[in-house]
Amino acid sequence: MNPHDGFRELDRQECLGLLGTAPVGRIVHTRHALPAVLPVNFCLDADSAVLLRTAAESELAQAIDGVVVAFEADEVDARAHSGWSVVVTGRATVVTDPVEHGRLSRTGPRSWVASPQDVFIRIEPELVTGRELVGGRTRPPPRALRG
Amino acid sequence: MNPHDGFRELDRQECLGLLGTAPVGRIVHTRHALPAVLPVNFCLDADSAVLLRTAAESELAQAIDGVVVAFEADEVDARAHSGWSVVVTGRATVVTDPVEHGRLSRTGPRSWVASPQDVFIRIEPELVTGRELVGGRTRPPPRALRG
Repeated sequence: MNPHDGFRELDRQECLGLLGTAPVGRIVHTRHALPAVLPVNFCLDADSAVLLRTAAESELAQAIDGVVVAFEADEVDARAHSGWSVVVTGRATVVTDPVEHGRLSRTGPRSWVASPQDVFIRIEPELVTGRELVGGRTRPPPRALRG
Repeated sequence: MNPHDGFRELDRQECLGLLGTAPVGRIVHTRHALPAVLPVNFCLDADSAVLLRTAAESELAQAIDGVVVAFEADEVDARAHSGWSVVVTGRATVVTDPVEHGRLSRTGPRSWVASPQDVFIRIEPELVTGRELVGGRTRPPPRALRG
């Protein structure tokens, strides 16, 4: 990371702590050989995997099953020049195990659009990176890092 | 677009109208063969190109010059299940023309971190897509579409 770019690198625990405060993230993958990005709600599993819920027939589920994707969340105040962003990079997998599906139906993320054919997608937290914007006029710590 | 996925496709004018209301977007590209995503401030040029400003020596400027990237902005209320997202896909180019650089220094986006070596990056609005989340319990129109 360029030390002059006004950002501070966050460690894995800081990243996961901030990610847990975000209501929405963005799934980034490749679609028809072009970069694609889509906001989704999510939650973190106990092992810090990112959990999504979507319709089984959705383009998203078909596009990312078995593929390395990025998942990003951020909270940026453009006026105050403060905020953070976190990216989880790892393989996405549609959960096919019925026991695991049952567990996630009870504890996993809710779908924005109800569907009896929902599936859960896990994104393994293989690479977790993040940065805090520290180049602004004011420098409050990220929300989850406050006392 | 799947008609059952709870989203309404937005046309190009709706997309650009909404994009103009967003203070922050996210640049999506490929880095070391992995998807990468980074929040940035921006503004739209008169021809609807997305304009970014960053340090000339930044990793971002070097990574995306001449490359097709995606630029995403959204406003999602996860509780109300409402919101929108817009993606501009097109070639990113570092502005090298001194006259154009001068114009953008006056009218273009401000940098979060001041640097005398700032460059401007244009993303051509070759493909502009967006969707409104309409599967929620409440369905207010996107902010920029209200009367």
